[in-house]
Amino acid sequence: MTDFWNDEPHLKEKLETVSRTIENTVATAHGFIRPILLEHVQSVGKMLRPTLVLITSALGERSVTDDAIRVASVIELIHLASLVHDDIIDSATTRRGKSTIYAKLGAKQAVLAGDFLLAKALLLTSGKERGMDSRVVSAALSRLCESELEQDAGQGDFFIPRHAYLRRIAGKTASLFALSCYAGVALQEAEPLKLMLCHRIGYCMGMAFQIQDDILDYTGSSSKLGKNTGNDLKCGIPTLPLMYALEQEQMDGTTELRDLLQGSKTPLKQKTVDRALHLVASLDGVQKAQILAESYKMRALSDMKRLGHPQVERQLGNLLAKLSKRSV
Amino acid sequence: MTDFWNDEPHLKEKLETVSRTIENTVATAHGFIRPILLEHVQSVGKMLRPTLVLITSALGERSVTDDAIRVASVIELIHLASLVHDDIIDSATTRRGKSTIYAKLGAKQAVLAGDFLLAKALLLTSGKERGMDSRVVSAALSRLCESELEQDAGQGDFFIPRHAYLRRIAGKTASLFALSCYAGVALQEAEPLKLMLCHRIGYCMGMAFQIQDDILDYTGSSSKLGKNTGNDLKCGIPTLPLMYALEQEQMDGTTELRDLLQGSKTPLKQKTVDRALHLVASLDGVQKAQILAESYKMRALSDMKRLGHPQVERQLGNLLAKLSKRSV
Repeated sequence: MTDFWNDEPHLKEKLETVSRTIENTVATAHGFIRPILLEHVQSVGKMLRPTLVLITSALGERSVTDDAIRVASVIELIHLASLVHDDIIDSATTRRGKSTIYAKLGAKQAVLAGDFLLAKALLLTSGKERGMDSRVVSAALSRLCESELEQDAGQGDFFIPRHAYLRRIAGKTASLFALSCYAGVALQEAEPLKLMLCHRIGYCMGMAFQIQDDILDYTGSSSKLGKNTGNDLKCGIPTLPLMYALEQEQMDGTTELRDLLQGSKTPLKQKTVDRALHLVASLDGVQKAQILAESYKMRALSDMKRLGHPQVERQLGNLLAKLSKRSV
Repeated sequence: MTDFWNDEPHLKEKLETVSRTIENTVATAHGFIRPILLEHVQSVGKMLRPTLVLITSALGERSVTDDAIRVASVIELIHLASLVHDDIIDSATTRRGKSTIYAKLGAKQAVLAGDFLLAKALLLTSGKERGMDSRVVSAALSRLCESELEQDAGQGDFFIPRHAYLRRIAGKTASLFALSCYAGVALQEAEPLKLMLCHRIGYCMGMAFQIQDDILDYTGSSSKLGKNTGNDLKCGIPTLPLMYALEQEQMDGTTELRDLLQGSKTPLKQKTVDRALHLVASLDGVQKAQILAESYKMRALSDMKRLGHPQVERQLGNLLAKLSKRSV
């Protein structure tokens, strides 16, 4: 889990229980798949989604730790399953420096391994948790699939409108963040305003997080994040900086970037990628995307204040600050 | 749904409601995936699993039709999702004479389409049904994945012991049949004996059904079932007739079949397949497999009697008889 949560020992301890819950659930697998799945769930990242569940579960008087840990484990298992399937879709052989399940077992077995994790997530949804309806889990998971389907089907099409991009990242990232934030406070049977605020905080954090992640493809240092600059562009995945740049071009009445992309087949040649990266930067695409990410963060911060709970506000704010640092 | 249920108009009517429930659930999908998924769920087969739920849900005094229809829809959606993923694993381009989702969209998109159906199944598990615990759904789904993983990993190994084969088909077929039979009566909060009997009836029907299906690979007419005789053999999937034949050879002290398979790489050449089919038949492999399938049927029939409910007994017996006719 890295040392991401060293400054919140209380949260860190609970997150370790979430990790153990997930490991114990997966450890029931048989045969050769067991060590592979265990390694996958152990090489977790920062556990952002479970952390959101745990933080917002404090927004009330009840003691809901056990339920919060179970719900957090469900959401992380769904996330882990989606990563296994994502790696098939992206033909990704490594993730966080380690071989993916897809690389180890091939596409066929990776499909089943992901399904197995989804089945295990279902095991932990007893259906009896206060507020945590399987309907909301289902809605988030469906949106996740739809957004990925849409992105995959549209690959190579650089010219989608900005609202289509926003809907896509809302589905593939923000909906699970929103569910996580909502699920914690839902255990408390909180009043509707708090539920709505938490859902929106998660949504805005997810949007900011994904936009920032997409910006990194235009600015990021590949060594730190294991991503190559310009990779999305190369594969034909349009993201926000590109859209703003194309809009700016249209306003300026120039067409170099548009012509460059319209005339090229994906995967783009490195020369085309380099030129496009340069053009996007000089057309202020990156800068404008950063401004939109900031505005989502601002909305999240202002909603955090409205919760009227200093500890929760501090922890959520801390998480948002940590996420922002990734872009440095 | 074909005319498979014409002789049970009452059941047929409820099955049509199950179909509509599934269609309405899937119809919420967006974009290009919607018509493809709708076609997939509309080209359903005999709806064996929902039928089992509906039949056993009559084993009590309560009126549980609505719950039974929902639970039946959940199980059929899980089955439909597993078919989408199975077709990726088997690289199958047609199913029941129609193009598979894998053939239409490719492996990547088919992964997501299957996930979407699983998400929609989750939507229908409100978690509030009497007796129908998400734990049992999860257990069946996990076993399904594990058994497929095991089969896929073992492909090309003809020499697995009989109990390994039985465990494999228990996971990939019988567990979902058992769940279906169990789920219906569980809605009635029936006494433990009835729950156990129903679970075992479903299990035995599933085992008989799968063994029979595997026998068809040795005897079946390809035109009727859209399967080619000897296909499992060719692909390196060992099934019961082969195992009995190899056991017989060992008892006889001969080794032709063993040597034939040990010396060949999968996919086998047609000449090898033809010779192996001949040897399996002459070593009584098919006949012995039929006897085991019969014994599972007998156990199911005797458990049906013990339920003490003439209508349920008749309907389950009718279903079993129909399944048996497939082998003709």
